[in-house]
Amino acid sequence: MRADLDRLMAEYNLDAIVVLGDETPNSQRDYLTSRARAGGSIYKKRGEPAVYVVSPMEIDEAAKSGLAVKTMYDFGLAELQKQHRGDIPAIRRGIMQNIFKSLGISGRVGLYGTHEVNSTVPFIMMMLDNTMGVELATSEENRPDLFSRMYETKDDQEIAALRDVGKRTSQLVSDTWEFISQHYATSLEIGSPIVDKNGNPLTIGAVKRFIRMRAMELDVTEEDTIFAQGRDAALPHSRGEDDDVLQVGKSIVYDIFPKHIHSGYYHDMTRTWCIGVAPADVQAAYDDVMHVFHETQARMKIGEDAKLFQEMALDYFESKEHPTPRTRNDTMDGYVHSLGHGLGLNIHEAPGLRLYGPSKLEAGNVFTVEPGLYYPDRGYGVRVEDTVYLDDEGKLQTLTDFRYDLVIPIRVR
Amino acid sequence: MRADLDRLMAEYNLDAIVVLGDETPNSQRDYLTSRARAGGSIYKKRGEPAVYVVSPMEIDEAAKSGLAVKTMYDFGLAELQKQHRGDIPAIRRGIMQNIFKSLGISGRVGLYGTHEVNSTVPFIMMMLDNTMGVELATSEENRPDLFSRMYETKDDQEIAALRDVGKRTSQLVSDTWEFISQHYATSLEIGSPIVDKNGNPLTIGAVKRFIRMRAMELDVTEEDTIFAQGRDAALPHSRGEDDDVLQVGKSIVYDIFPKHIHSGYYHDMTRTWCIGVAPADVQAAYDDVMHVFHETQARMKIGEDAKLFQEMALDYFESKEHPTPRTRNDTMDGYVHSLGHGLGLNIHEAPGLRLYGPSKLEAGNVFTVEPGLYYPDRGYGVRVEDTVYLDDEGKLQTLTDFRYDLVIPIRVR
Repeated sequence: MRADLDRLMAEYNLDAIVVLGDETPNSQRDYLTSRARAGGSIYKKRGEPAVYVVSPMEIDEAAKSGLAVKTMYDFGLAELQKQHRGDIPAIRRGIMQNIFKSLGISGRVGLYGTHEVNSTVPFIMMMLDNTMGVELATSEENRPDLFSRMYETKDDQEIAALRDVGKRTSQLVSDTWEFISQHYATSLEIGSPIVDKNGNPLTIGAVKRFIRMRAMELDVTEEDTIFAQGRDAALPHSRGEDDDVLQVGKSIVYDIFPKHIHSGYYHDMTRTWCIGVAPADVQAAYDDVMHVFHETQARMKIGEDAKLFQEMALDYFESKEHPTPRTRNDTMDGYVHSLGHGLGLNIHEAPGLRLYGPSKLEAGNVFTVEPGLYYPDRGYGVRVEDTVYLDDEGKLQTLTDFRYDLVIPIRVR
Repeated sequence: MRADLDRLMAEYNLDAIVVLGDETPNSQRDYLTSRARAGGSIYKKRGEPAVYVVSPMEIDEAAKSGLAVKTMYDFGLAELQKQHRGDIPAIRRGIMQNIFKSLGISGRVGLYGTHEVNSTVPFIMMMLDNTMGVELATSEENRPDLFSRMYETKDDQEIAALRDVGKRTSQLVSDTWEFISQHYATSLEIGSPIVDKNGNPLTIGAVKRFIRMRAMELDVTEEDTIFAQGRDAALPHSRGEDDDVLQVGKSIVYDIFPKHIHSGYYHDMTRTWCIGVAPADVQAAYDDVMHVFHETQARMKIGEDAKLFQEMALDYFESKEHPTPRTRNDTMDGYVHSLGHGLGLNIHEAPGLRLYGPSKLEAGNVFTVEPGLYYPDRGYGVRVEDTVYLDDEGKLQTLTDFRYDLVIPIRVR
């Protein structure tokens, strides 16, 4: 968590960090600024307060971060502009030298943030030559970076934000279920179209439009929501095709990861639905997925290796003769991804529930549990996902709140 | 435009480019992939087709880019994972070496895209040592990067997308005007609150909620919309305070830059409004702004220096005794920013209408024209902005379509 920053800087042997920023969304900057809506970069020496350097127009927004705010004019921008007239790289270099000198930054410096790569290059070159008088931490150590380490555990304020976006997302999924169930099937035969009261077919595009509007009312934004049916449901990253009509008995994977418009925290959940009836093969796959879903969570506790849960999932699915990457390297069938991932201001962050990686479960972890099975050639996929939180007493709390029914009942007419 | 890529690579002496990508929004990748919803990076040798390297789960989405799609397994991921078991940096390095070798990338290589800085560092280090057998283009030349050069002009497909999002945005602003004008003032005295038919005050938060919902219906997303009143309107980057009640006669700066949810292209427009009546000082500032708005556009033509228009704005505002950064370096009063900026898949891109920078207007330019005047201590700010397009015949077309009235008429009750 954020409070660990100075301790982790010591552990990582960093005398200072720079969080580079431009106009791109920047979760590491957001994390340190409590999501103040300003651009700019952050400079912090170990044991000293962070300094947020922004353009003069953004001072008021930047002040909401609670950090010390300075502008580039405080570091000689006006003089450098006069001296270098339009030579942007020279001005940038001068500003950076002035900031380092003025703040007394020296020793080993780590670079973070999100930035356009092309304009990161000259900055890194400067850190590597002798102009800045510092040593660049090149992150070649095989371990998570500083921010990933902080992200691994959430403080109370973050948990409150995560709980809030979890409630909103669960509501949204519940509303989507209701929206679909107000429609009709023309018969309960597999493949029959779902229609509205006037007989017009219900498309994935219409469902997505409903989701989008409802998300807005709930003060969350969603992008790239997966609402994919049949074969598309078996392609874990297919978003679904807008023109496809919903059909009785086809597996629908609905994976949604909205972000609260103010806090910026994400929730992530998935449900698999069959409208009207579930075919036997989909039901069997669903049962295997739910087995792993419950069995792994029952074993989760503080101090346990994160990779244990991926192993449990692999063992169980293999015992049921589903292919996995352990049995077939490049398989696109069966269980093809890891069991879960942390989330916060990023949709994917530490800790990961996967085979490789050092993490042990700790109090304050927030992560997804999302077993799935995929069979493109058989035309179905199944995934179920909740976001969970390991609390201070070591209890696993679920931040998602929606039932696990596979079948959405539907009226026939 | 995109079709210039190989020609510009030759001009910039680049044998190959790499567009690095992770989960972060990445407009340079979007530009080359027509916004396919996949992660991954792009590798392109001059004169050869680009290769898009993604995870196996994203093949189908990536294929929508029209580029050649490969996965990391095609470049030995499985073998590297076995060899380096969980040593992520080593695996990354191996993949990159395999990609470079397999595609025959050598010579001078430019790096682009948007990426987490900390994991960009080892990649740049690899390019600098001898393991990759290439020379890193370090971008220290004082000129716009390759993508900025492409962004300067838009092709027909892009103009169509920009025209479309312009129509939607203009509609949204028109709807916002209508929404406000359906309210009431308790009197026409400056400072009187605006209320609904039940006498409940109309807040900025309520207006922003209206904008958000309506944006969704129009298939655009907006974030960080500025709807700022009084002193806040005089702080160019203040977003406005949700709890503030709209008042008669206060200047409201409404600056909105929505993005189409499918195309990803932006529009950018600003209007300044006073509800009911306009005070004389706001009206006078408004007239000065509109003078610059029209006068500069009347002079815009192919081949003209972009900086001329910023000079015209500065000259005129100074002649009216408004402070500018030319008369007072760090002024926060008067005219404090540049006249405009290009836009496309980025809200700010080339060409810029500012004092420094080499650009001349060309056919295919799309940019904003946005003079403004700011007086925080007097409690008002004024800005008017359209997005315009210089067509193949050299005619300046406006992509924004909404009237420039300062006063929104309001009923009193």
